[in-house]
Amino acid sequence: MAVALRAGVRPDDRVAVRRLVASTGFFTANEEEIAVELVEDALAKGESGSGYHFLFAEDGGHVVGYVCFGPIAGTAASHDLYWIVVDSARRGGGVGRVLERACVDAVKALGGLRLYVDTSSRSQYEPTRAFYRASGYEEVARLKDFYAAGDGKVIFVKALDAGTAPGAA
Amino acid sequence: MAVALRAGVRPDDRVAVRRLVASTGFFTANEEEIAVELVEDALAKGESGSGYHFLFAEDGGHVVGYVCFGPIAGTAASHDLYWIVVDSARRGGGVGRVLERACVDAVKALGGLRLYVDTSSRSQYEPTRAFYRASGYEEVARLKDFYAAGDGKVIFVKALDAGTAPGAA
Repeated sequence: MAVALRAGVRPDDRVAVRRLVASTGFFTANEEEIAVELVEDALAKGESGSGYHFLFAEDGGHVVGYVCFGPIAGTAASHDLYWIVVDSARRGGGVGRVLERACVDAVKALGGLRLYVDTSSRSQYEPTRAFYRASGYEEVARLKDFYAAGDGKVIFVKALDAGTAPGAA
Repeated sequence: MAVALRAGVRPDDRVAVRRLVASTGFFTANEEEIAVELVEDALAKGESGSGYHFLFAEDGGHVVGYVCFGPIAGTAASHDLYWIVVDSARRGGGVGRVLERACVDAVKALGGLRLYVDTSSRSQYEPTRAFYRASGYEEVARLKDFYAAGDGKVIFVKALDAGTAPGAA
């Protein structure tokens, strides 16, 4: 695992994010557009201004994964993990785990105490749900038929230990 | 109960919404700003463009309550009931019930099949939660400490009967 983490979104991340999201085969064209729009929003307003923070995993300068997260408006210290995407060619190689840990550290640094993530109840997403469970997230809700008939929303949360210093594993 | 319903947001609703939200004593200054921003968004982009739809309850041309709702992005037919606010002087008079019914009809007309509403778990909101239960909403999730320590998010949903004609009681 020779990936390096980079904070701070750049204009060419629009292309990288589109490529990564498309590589998974998981997302609709509309979801792909939304992923790119969040990058554009962060480029236009800054990460704090937009509320969308990014971390990129790179291998030899090539982006192989990213995570997008930010504070939930109207809450004191809850954050959302909006997207965590790994290049399909690198799945199972630990990139997602590195990104998730870095995201947790960054959210703690922003003062976050709880990290929420939503996913689909469809069987296609079972590996995603298993990843969150293995990463210490607890399933706290399941909203039947939320996305569509037969496609519910599963909400996970990870309570962040304020006592752990950022960067500590 | 001599209230009339009005669809379609107008510039002077900014003042009305601010007055109604402030009258309740329930919301923070920040929440008051958000309520007004949704009106401004709907005025600028149209209700469909903004995703924020409004219905106003009026008595003699005076706004005594309103409801704000709209489709949830990324879902086939789920809608959110964002705000339902009644002038504190008119609480208990059935205005909320009239607005909720009109909202359900409007959501059905937009093709919505499920109507979600979030509220706080704090005791101050027990009358709000009782209102939703009495209106046919089911509690489907409780996210502990979501808004702040000791202040959870309660999620209700009402499954809308596609077979019922809009307007029917």
